[in-house]
Amino acid sequence: MNIRIILLGKDKDRWLSEAVDEYLKRLAPFCRLEILQLPDVSIKQTGNSQQVIQKEGEKVLGRLEEDDFVILLEERGEEKSSLEFSQFLTKLSDRKRIVFVIGGVYGTSKQLGQRAHFRMSLSRLTFTHRMSRLILIEQIYRAMMISSGRSYHI
Amino acid sequence: MNIRIILLGKDKDRWLSEAVDEYLKRLAPFCRLEILQLPDVSIKQTGNSQQVIQKEGEKVLGRLEEDDFVILLEERGEEKSSLEFSQFLTKLSDRKRIVFVIGGVYGTSKQLGQRAHFRMSLSRLTFTHRMSRLILIEQIYRAMMISSGRSYHI
Repeated sequence: MNIRIILLGKDKDRWLSEAVDEYLKRLAPFCRLEILQLPDVSIKQTGNSQQVIQKEGEKVLGRLEEDDFVILLEERGEEKSSLEFSQFLTKLSDRKRIVFVIGGVYGTSKQLGQRAHFRMSLSRLTFTHRMSRLILIEQIYRAMMISSGRSYHI
Repeated sequence: MNIRIILLGKDKDRWLSEAVDEYLKRLAPFCRLEILQLPDVSIKQTGNSQQVIQKEGEKVLGRLEEDDFVILLEERGEEKSSLEFSQFLTKLSDRKRIVFVIGGVYGTSKQLGQRAHFRMSLSRLTFTHRMSRLILIEQIYRAMMISSGRSYHI
């Protein structure tokens, strides 16, 4: 399985990198996962949040390929249990690439929403994109453990 | 506000400690938050998961005081949005102490469930207790930012 996570932001927390690296290492035998971090657009430069959303949306759209199955992480998206998420990914395993998009601080553009095949929410709670990234990767790992029949607690 | 998080486990990941410490520092001006990590019970010693649940439940119950308002984190608990969670905490601010309990790997005992005032779920997704801990602390911080009218994105 070929998975890409596209996210916006400039953060480089050591703890987050360590945590993400741990899961990437664990995931390596099960799927190819890459993270593409695009610098977010500054509201100081653009003037308003609508412009940020628009420009960030264009950035992300510019990095998508035609065959990509696009899953947009959004607060108003559909929630899944870990088991459902695992089954969902298994069904997509014949896709060339699955791309998860974690939107920016102000939301995601209409065009990006239209390009997405599925809108998913991690929780009713609002997470920062730092947390969303970690939770998503951990859940992809959990999904792989479920679909391969392995136990996983830690 | 006086908050305690009780959790079971032996893990000491550096990235998790760093992340938790970051949020504890940020939280310090808003509330007193302490984490009590109790060693989990080994299934090898007890023989079966029901015994683990029972023994872990007793451990946690032994650390609760009569006045504590107990919130049990459970997969089948009630989900809240970040705004609802913030309002929920604000309403509890006159309580002597709010105690969040993150259960062990196999679940939580009936007695612990009966002692809890509220059962909460962070998401439909299943998280490890490592992730639950980080998400909970981040959401407590977010709740404080919401109730004090501050913005928070990172």
